[in-house]
Amino acid sequence: MQKRGLLVVVSGPSGSGKSTLLKELKNVNPELKFSVSATTRPPRANEIEGQNYFFKTVDEFAEMIKKGELIEWTSYCDNLYGTPKSLVEDCIKSGKDIVLEIEVQGHENIKRIYPESVSIFILPPTYEELVRRIEKRGSETSETLQKRLDTAKKEMLCLEQYDYVIVNADIQKAIKEINCILIAEKHKVSRNENILKDIGLN
Amino acid sequence: MQKRGLLVVVSGPSGSGKSTLLKELKNVNPELKFSVSATTRPPRANEIEGQNYFFKTVDEFAEMIKKGELIEWTSYCDNLYGTPKSLVEDCIKSGKDIVLEIEVQGHENIKRIYPESVSIFILPPTYEELVRRIEKRGSETSETLQKRLDTAKKEMLCLEQYDYVIVNADIQKAIKEINCILIAEKHKVSRNENILKDIGLN
Repeated sequence: MQKRGLLVVVSGPSGSGKSTLLKELKNVNPELKFSVSATTRPPRANEIEGQNYFFKTVDEFAEMIKKGELIEWTSYCDNLYGTPKSLVEDCIKSGKDIVLEIEVQGHENIKRIYPESVSIFILPPTYEELVRRIEKRGSETSETLQKRLDTAKKEMLCLEQYDYVIVNADIQKAIKEINCILIAEKHKVSRNENILKDIGLN
Repeated sequence: MQKRGLLVVVSGPSGSGKSTLLKELKNVNPELKFSVSATTRPPRANEIEGQNYFFKTVDEFAEMIKKGELIEWTSYCDNLYGTPKSLVEDCIKSGKDIVLEIEVQGHENIKRIYPESVSIFILPPTYEELVRRIEKRGSETSETLQKRLDTAKKEMLCLEQYDYVIVNADIQKAIKEINCILIAEKHKVSRNENILKDIGLN
């Protein structure tokens, strides 16, 4: 029987360095699949359709919900975000690992639907550093900035819903730690129910 | 607050290559502590007192039990085996990881006393290979051999009581996997209850 791939949920507040970390993780693990979310948020300057997000109008997003094409969806900073079902399901069934970058509400939904998923929370090296990083972003108005800081704090308080926590102080170290989590999870007894048969013990 | 060290229980049947694997793990992780069991089993030719085991008479062993100096003890192939308490407790409290090589009954006891312990079961690459390895040992009589094979089978059926399973086909790969398990476990949210405070979030 084909062993199922891991569904890896990665969350972390703005300013945790999560996006840069995941980009580098993708580079060093080319066999790792990454889910692309659908969103009604307008694209930022450097974002590419189908790579960063599937950018949708509210109507298009509603249509995806209606057709059952999203595993979960949620509202975050006044925009809708959702996880398309097909890529995730195809990956897991074919034994490939797939990473989902979602916020904390999304994680709650995923954990309910896929209790075997592995969740990792990324923290900044310090809270001060998180504030500095969010302030440095040109795209934020002062109001959005305060909202993002409040959201970041609230999100970090959801840490205990996650399986693992990584402090993102050194990106190479953080990647090594994430890769170790994936290797360890693959060796969980609960994910290897046929192993005695596989080694020839009946 | 000092973070507690990991208590890592490693079990595996005779012929799984567990002892060789742990010896190599010790070489590559000099900071890792290893518990030394007390036993009433007579020493084998190459075994050293205080390094492989603390070899005890039945009376001495009974005295250790009476004084509360053993965390757990059990009978295995007509001999008594026990885990001295002091080294284990000292390591964990001072934040050092300690490995306990014990058989499956011992593991049950440890898991009851230390539910936060991490348990790893070592399997041989194939069952045939396990039989070959046990047969090759000069120290076994034919009766002992059959007993060891039966015990090995029974032990492997206890696999599901463990957290992780490693198939010991390639010793370097197996060591890498064990080290990943240790790193992953250290990043469990449940082992990092002060982390938000540590990064400066109140």
